[in-house]
This record gives sequence, structure tokens and C-alpha cells, in this order.
Amino acid sequence: MRAARYHGVRDVRLEQIPEPEPGPGQIKIAVAYNGLCGSDLHEYFNAPTFIPMEPHPLTGAHAPCVLGHEFSGTVVAVGDGAGVFGPGDRVAVRPTYSCGECPACRIGAPNICKQLAFHGGSAAGGGLSEFTVVDETMAHKLPDSVSLLSGALVEPLAVAQHAVNRAAPGADDTVVVIGSGAIGIGVWLALRARGIEKVIVSEPSGQRRQAISRLGAERVVDPTSQDLQTIVDEVSGGVGAAVVFDAAGVPQAFADGLSVLAPHGILMVVSVYERGLDFNPTALLTGEHTITTSLTYSDTEFAEVIANMERGVYGADGWTDVIGLDQLTDAFELLRAGEAVKILVEI
Amino acid sequence: MRAARYHGVRDVRLEQIPEPEPGPGQIKIAVAYNGLCGSDLHEYFNAPTFIPMEPHPLTGAHAPCVLGHEFSGTVVAVGDGAGVFGPGDRVAVRPTYSCGECPACRIGAPNICKQLAFHGGSAAGGGLSEFTVVDETMAHKLPDSVSLLSGALVEPLAVAQHAVNRAAPGADDTVVVIGSGAIGIGVWLALRARGIEKVIVSEPSGQRRQAISRLGAERVVDPTSQDLQTIVDEVSGGVGAAVVFDAAGVPQAFADGLSVLAPHGILMVVSVYERGLDFNPTALLTGEHTITTSLTYSDTEFAEVIANMERGVYGADGWTDVIGLDQLTDAFELLRAGEAVKILVEI
Repeated sequence: MRAARYHGVRDVRLEQIPEPEPGPGQIKIAVAYNGLCGSDLHEYFNAPTFIPMEPHPLTGAHAPCVLGHEFSGTVVAVGDGAGVFGPGDRVAVRPTYSCGECPACRIGAPNICKQLAFHGGSAAGGGLSEFTVVDETMAHKLPDSVSLLSGALVEPLAVAQHAVNRAAPGADDTVVVIGSGAIGIGVWLALRARGIEKVIVSEPSGQRRQAISRLGAERVVDPTSQDLQTIVDEVSGGVGAAVVFDAAGVPQAFADGLSVLAPHGILMVVSVYERGLDFNPTALLTGEHTITTSLTYSDTEFAEVIANMERGVYGADGWTDVIGLDQLTDAFELLRAGEAVKILVEI
Repeated sequence: MRAARYHGVRDVRLEQIPEPEPGPGQIKIAVAYNGLCGSDLHEYFNAPTFIPMEPHPLTGAHAPCVLGHEFSGTVVAVGDGAGVFGPGDRVAVRPTYSCGECPACRIGAPNICKQLAFHGGSAAGGGLSEFTVVDETMAHKLPDSVSLLSGALVEPLAVAQHAVNRAAPGADDTVVVIGSGAIGIGVWLALRARGIEKVIVSEPSGQRRQAISRLGAERVVDPTSQDLQTIVDEVSGGVGAAVVFDAAGVPQAFADGLSVLAPHGILMVVSVYERGLDFNPTALLTGEHTITTSLTYSDTEFAEVIANMERGVYGADGWTDVIGLDQLTDAFELLRAGEAVKILVEI
């Protein structure tokens, strides 16, 4: 079968590899769509960070390996002992593997397992291939009304859902999302699904402002020409933002975020910083502010996202483009240039 | 009457000023003891930061002003309408003034009022004087078993109590206190009062390690010769620290603190950083760690500290020195040199 395998920086190859067959407790999926993630871009352009060059301590996998951890598909075969799903079932897959033994796993937070591995990067197989095999426990059934295209968005939206759940803004809170790339849009959709109405998006790129405005965002600010603090004050009645989601990962976003927080406000960093920044912890003091982060998701959050899709709160419309597997490396270039928000590969 | 007034850097004068008389709702206190705080040292040696040179927006006070916000004393007169306390009552005073109107006050967090002012720095009067007048609502009665000397420690211990309450470690959690100056000791005492047993103190100064060991701390680490991570692993069974209190305010403390956190661990900064440091927010990601801070206290926390003193959990023994008002500037020098932990001025 055909698969996109990562060999190193700027070296992703479409290769013929053996078709996997399901072992005990596993299901074989004919992949329908696989989304491209910011982390894939990082691995492709910068350095192998999440993809192990040596055997991964939990899975033993290493490069070259099949890419793609945001995927949906149809079950085509079932291994011994797997019985929840049958051929023809349409599924989205939680692609994470956890050790079950580390402190995080022991406190019920496998999403931050010390040995966290991903299907599509640090395990055997991934979504950027015609077929892939996963443990049945990793699959979530898609309701009839949720398309396979939307199904490939469950994973990135679960990332956003987890960040929003952790920050837990109240219904009347003012919330700011800094950056409206794919993660910022995901957070904005999760906030809308939660019924948060006072959401302000700050984004310097005109293209990205247009993208999120098309989805229905009403308060979209250009921080290079508008004063975010003034707008936050207007919307919040002078209180400030209960939560700021930093979906930009640049020092200006961090500074802007801290500056508009309400008393006891939370700066939730949902981006990856390539470099450090200058920070004085005492900046948090006068408002007893908090900085925290959010990593991956739980199965409950996968289910929440799928339920939101079933309710019609959000889907793939308005922020996604679909390409074929042959166009994969072109898609990486488009994403890096900011000329697309979210690209899904049709397998 | 005699009072110590702040005029500017290295310029605190013992002066004769008029004795204040209580207005409506106020009480006049003959001050017994007043503790010296790190912020007093900062104002004395570095710059007027909390003491306004222009009229304070809430109180109208400005330098020169009477210093001292950690004090106890005996009520000697009562203004019209004040009736909770009478002459002879021994009290500790919550020295903070809040506006009642800002977002923080409106959400019930006057401890982070935007216009927070202090009796003894940014209001009329302070504890480093023979008498001072405060609103009756700021006073807390001391039980018979709590000495006036301990009473002057209620304020700094309420600071520690608030930090511990905000971080809310569980009974079985491993907790690290970095720095065992007055604030670190206060946090350690508050943790002991809460029944937290797995507490590790990290402190490079031998003098300070001895000070907290004398109080009963058993796990006191010299980070310059011992590996904090190893000790945290031993005590926590490999889990890490649920909470680290940074009572040092230097980059090494911040780095050490982050490095030993358990999954979902909290770095609670209870120190003031004179300068920024290099920080990559993504350092929080793999453990979904949190950084936050703590400012002042509530009346409830004043009451908690007084109740702990009444239970005999802690007091002034073993970490305080008493001097006279004439020795005030010498005391600032001693504190700066690290040759005393907590100095109380007997008025």
C-alpha cells in the first residue's frame, strides 16, 4: 500500500510498504482523510522533535515512520478479541499511546504520560497511508450525520476542547484568542460550542482574520492597528479577560495576553514556542494571574467533539482544504506560507 | 509621639509627629511590636516602589509617611460608631485598604484590588510609631494565649497562609519550598499547620538552612551540593512535587522549581523578582504545569493564622529577633546581610 513516510527534515517519501493486519484487540482502518498538524510542519521543516530517530521507549518505533495522527476512516477488518467495531463502521482515532505506569498515568492523566507516543510519528503506522491498524480502544465511532471529512478534524478539535476545558471559562466571561491559525480557530470553535459569547480574536494577518471572520467570529482585532486592551475593556466592562488562549507562540502574544487578563485571569498557552522570552514572574503578582498549558486530550474530549459535530455546532466547512497524497509536500509549503489554514489529505 | 518615617532611599527618620485620634468607626492602637518586611528593605535600599511619592489614588497618602505594616498592639481609644473593640483589647491589624469598586473588589478579591494601599507605606500612619489609628474592620482580636509578639507575625504568616491556600496541596502531596528566609519559613509553618508532612526545603545559605532546621524542618537540602530532583523523587516515590513555592526570587529557584514538578504541578511564586529571566512557556507543556502567584491575604486567612497560633502550631520562637526603634536602620542592614531572619521592632 502507499504511505507517506518521514525520513528526516524535508525528506518525506511516498513509498510502498506492506499492508498491516490487525492483531488481537486491534482494528484495521481504510483511512479516508488525514489532517496536517503544526507539529508535522515542525518535523518537516525544522527538526525531528516528536519523531524518534532511536526506538521510542514505549512503542519501539523510530524513523522512517508513517506520518499522520489526525485521521478518520472505515473499519475493514477486526482482530481476535476486538468486537466493539465491525467492518463498515466509520471512526475517528485518538492516536495517543500511554504507558499506564508513570505518575501522570497513575493520576488518571494519560494525556501527559511521560512516554506519550503518537500513531503517526512515534508508533507503528499512521494516518497518511491507505490502511492503518490501531487498538480498538483508540477508536471512536462517528454518528451517521458526521462526515469522514469532519471525522479527521476530531483530533485537532479535541486538542482545543481540552485547552478550553482546562481553562474552564464561565458563560459570561470575556475570552481572548491570540492567533487564528488552525489552533486558534479550533479554540474559537470550542468556545462557541461551550456557549461563550464574549470572545475576542487578535490576529495580525489579514488572511487569517478573514478566515475566522468567515466562520462567524464577530470581534476580530488587528493588534497592529487596534488597541486590544481598549477592546477587551469595552467587551468586559473594564474587568479584563478571564482567559487568554495564546495560539500564536510569539513573545508579543505572550505580552499582549498577560496585559489584558482580568483579576485571577489565566493565560493558557496552546502554542509551541521555538525560543524562550524575557519574563518576570512578578508580572503575575498584582492580578494573581496564572500561566498554564494544555497537551493532547482525553477520550471524553474526543466524545465531546463528536457530539458537537453531531449537534451541527461545527464541522469542516469554511476552514479546510482537501488535497491528494501526491500534493503532500506542496501542502506543507502552503501551510508554512500561511496560504491555507487546515489541509486534509484525502487518502 | 515618635514615629519612623520614610523620606526616600536610605532616608528613614525617627521623628516627632502629632498623635492621631480615632475618627468615626476607627480605633486607636498603642503599637506593641512591628515586624520588618522584605518590601520595607526594598524601599529602603533600592527605590520607593510601594510608597507613593505622589498622593495615592485611594488614600491620598504620600511620602514622607510612617513605615510598618506588620504590627500588633493594644486598643487605647475608640471613635464614634466603633464598638466591636474596647480599650485594653489586644489586636493584630490587616493593614490593607481596597477600593471596593474595581474588578478584583467586585469579584470578592480585595486582596488584589487595583488600588491596594497599606497602612504603613501608602496610608495615613503605620506600625512603626507609638500610636496608630485604623478602621475597626481592619483589626483582629488576639486570644489571651497569643502574645503581642506573635501578633506582629500574623500579617506575614497570613501572606504565607494565602499562598498555601491558593496552591492547596493535598495531605499526601510532596511540596518543595525554595528559599528559607522569612517568607520561606512562613510558608513552611503554614504547610506544617495544614498537616503536610512531605515538605522539602531547598536553601543554599547554611545560616538559613540552620534557621529552618531549628524550627523542626527535617528535609533541608543544600542545592549547591545535593541533587534536589533525586530527593524529590525519593520523597514522592518518583511522582514529583505537587507544589513548589518559590520564596527565593532568583532564576535558579525558578528553574529548579519547574524541573521537579509532578504532573499538573504548580509553581507558586511568593517572591519578588527584581529582574526578568529567560523562560520558554513550552517548558510547562509536557506536565501541563502551572505558574501562579499570591498577593496579600483575606480576613479569613488572618483568622486562620490567629487560630493556628492559639492551637500552638507556631509563634515567634526560633526565628525572630526583637530590637528597639532606635536600631531600625541597623536592622535593615542586618536583614540585608542575611544575619537575621525576621526582626520585630518593640515600640
